[in-house]
Amino acid sequence: MPNRREFMATSAVLAAASQLAPHACAGAAKKKKLGYALVGLGRLSTNQLAPALQKTSDSELVGIVTGSPDKAEQWQAKYGISKDNTYNYRNFDQIADNPDIDVIYVVLPNSMHQEFTIRAANAGKHVLCEKPMAITSQEARTMIEACDNAKVKLAIGYRCQFEPHNLECMRIAREEEFGPLKYIDAGFGFRFGDYPWGDLRRWRLEQEYAGGAALMDVGVYALQACRYLTGQEPLSVMAREIKNDPVKFAEVDETILWSMDFPNGVVANCSTTYGFSGVNVATAYAERGKFGLSPAFSYGGIKAFAGDRPIELPNVDQFALEMDDFSKVIKTDGKSKVSGEEGLRDMLVMEAIYKSVRDGSQVDVAHA
Amino acid sequence: MPNRREFMATSAVLAAASQLAPHACAGAAKKKKLGYALVGLGRLSTNQLAPALQKTSDSELVGIVTGSPDKAEQWQAKYGISKDNTYNYRNFDQIADNPDIDVIYVVLPNSMHQEFTIRAANAGKHVLCEKPMAITSQEARTMIEACDNAKVKLAIGYRCQFEPHNLECMRIAREEEFGPLKYIDAGFGFRFGDYPWGDLRRWRLEQEYAGGAALMDVGVYALQACRYLTGQEPLSVMAREIKNDPVKFAEVDETILWSMDFPNGVVANCSTTYGFSGVNVATAYAERGKFGLSPAFSYGGIKAFAGDRPIELPNVDQFALEMDDFSKVIKTDGKSKVSGEEGLRDMLVMEAIYKSVRDGSQVDVAHA
Repeated sequence: MPNRREFMATSAVLAAASQLAPHACAGAAKKKKLGYALVGLGRLSTNQLAPALQKTSDSELVGIVTGSPDKAEQWQAKYGISKDNTYNYRNFDQIADNPDIDVIYVVLPNSMHQEFTIRAANAGKHVLCEKPMAITSQEARTMIEACDNAKVKLAIGYRCQFEPHNLECMRIAREEEFGPLKYIDAGFGFRFGDYPWGDLRRWRLEQEYAGGAALMDVGVYALQACRYLTGQEPLSVMAREIKNDPVKFAEVDETILWSMDFPNGVVANCSTTYGFSGVNVATAYAERGKFGLSPAFSYGGIKAFAGDRPIELPNVDQFALEMDDFSKVIKTDGKSKVSGEEGLRDMLVMEAIYKSVRDGSQVDVAHA
Repeated sequence: MPNRREFMATSAVLAAASQLAPHACAGAAKKKKLGYALVGLGRLSTNQLAPALQKTSDSELVGIVTGSPDKAEQWQAKYGISKDNTYNYRNFDQIADNPDIDVIYVVLPNSMHQEFTIRAANAGKHVLCEKPMAITSQEARTMIEACDNAKVKLAIGYRCQFEPHNLECMRIAREEEFGPLKYIDAGFGFRFGDYPWGDLRRWRLEQEYAGGAALMDVGVYALQACRYLTGQEPLSVMAREIKNDPVKFAEVDETILWSMDFPNGVVANCSTTYGFSGVNVATAYAERGKFGLSPAFSYGGIKAFAGDRPIELPNVDQFALEMDDFSKVIKTDGKSKVSGEEGLRDMLVMEAIYKSVRDGSQVDVAHA
């Protein structure tokens, strides 16, 4: 992860990079495995993405972008990454000239998603960006526009949309196996550890870098579940925040409870928190029965049920599926189901949730 | 159940009855089984309370109050109830002179709870009143005062507070078996059938008689669960109503979602509905694990879990336990844990919930 001095330096580079002529990576369609560069070698890249890229069929780890020379060396050794495919935040834009790298996976603090998505697009690279897509819907729109202009694909790291139990629940909902959906109860949260948090995680409690805490980081999973189970966009939200630790969560949200209503009459009650662990659930109540997931959103160990029976499906590497899906989208010139537009829709709902918390009243959701 | 003409007639009788000198039933303490009279022979009395009174050790069915001569005859035959112990809504107050009857169980539409509780108290009888206690907190206060003045006991029909699985969850919460409580997710609702509803149920959709619908009838169970699991009173509520059938639910609430915060930092997300069936749950998330109930609030078939294990307890007749508890309270001159004050506290929260729905914003809960 870049340090703060680098955060600042990149702004000037961004201005320069946006002057470069966009040129999409023409060779990608012919490769068996597209080359991925991970930008930001924090916990997710280290523990999930790099291991996932050892299991992918259409994607491979070929590059890294890091502000830490030590990390660069470790990753080069561990994953056989060449020095030529190793970048830092200053020379990042030179990646435009590297044919090995087809996809940039943005795994940086939320506040940097916009900048590095745009820089990657301007370098002619396809972009997979971690959730939340950005800090504001305006940023999300700018990212979509930049990728459209550069004729590169953009997808958001919504791994659960590739997870078999979640997919099966979407199918049950869509085919109305238990009749029309009526109510969804969804929540995701965990206890954010106490000080010292370490550099890896501290940015998550700072408004400038995180843009929001529990809701942006994990609440978005509960929101996603409500949207992909109903297949609809919420009309309005009503939300409140409860802050039990106003020192730790001085800048960002701790626990948010919110409700939503959908055009088809479905209602949802949701929760998210950095204050306690254990809530990791999506239960859907339909006319003739219920089905759902618990744990719903973990990296592994997902369990699901439909009526009286458990849904017996394998637990898979969700990140591997997510990346291979994106590679296939690129190779076939298709559209990702977890596109930038999908990310924008969540940003619009989350903005409405934060507004509802501020205003203390119900807020209509703006639609893309 | 009385017809509408009788509803009106009782107002005049109430005025007269309140003039009677209060005289508590002195003989009750000496009986093995206290004599109960059911007021209102609707579904609950027919299907639950009368059968329960065949299993009680400290309570027995000795009297009935009904506006229907046909029902009176059927019940007299079925339960061996004497004509002397059979009353209607006009001669109800003569029950004061009947030493067989110690307890009046008010099983009437919500709007009549106040009137018949006060008339029963004025007749010197102890009162068990179905939930919701009344239509307003002001009515609840008047009922408490009337029973205090008449030196009779008052309890509310909160059967779940005698149900073994619910009790075990209370114990787990109170003893912090999984550490301090953090979050509760509770809901109760069912699909209120379509027209024709029949006379038995139609009053539940009329504001004048029900005072409220889903929240008052079944939402109160979810509210109770949050209160008896935390052992605290909510500080504030934030609520919204969703009405998918504005014709059927023209006068009363259909679906309400609400959240609450408690002094100990616990937060709760709740739901209630007359629009769909299936939500019948209370899940408590504590620091080191979760526990809860599903189905949580049914007459039977309650299931519960604590961490990874199911809570194995018998399903019992909750109404029988509720009535026997009240009989023991009377015989020992104790105080019921489901007292009028307990009912008043729920009324205050429900008033705050309805106010929040009307105002579209968060509302502080008034405390008794």
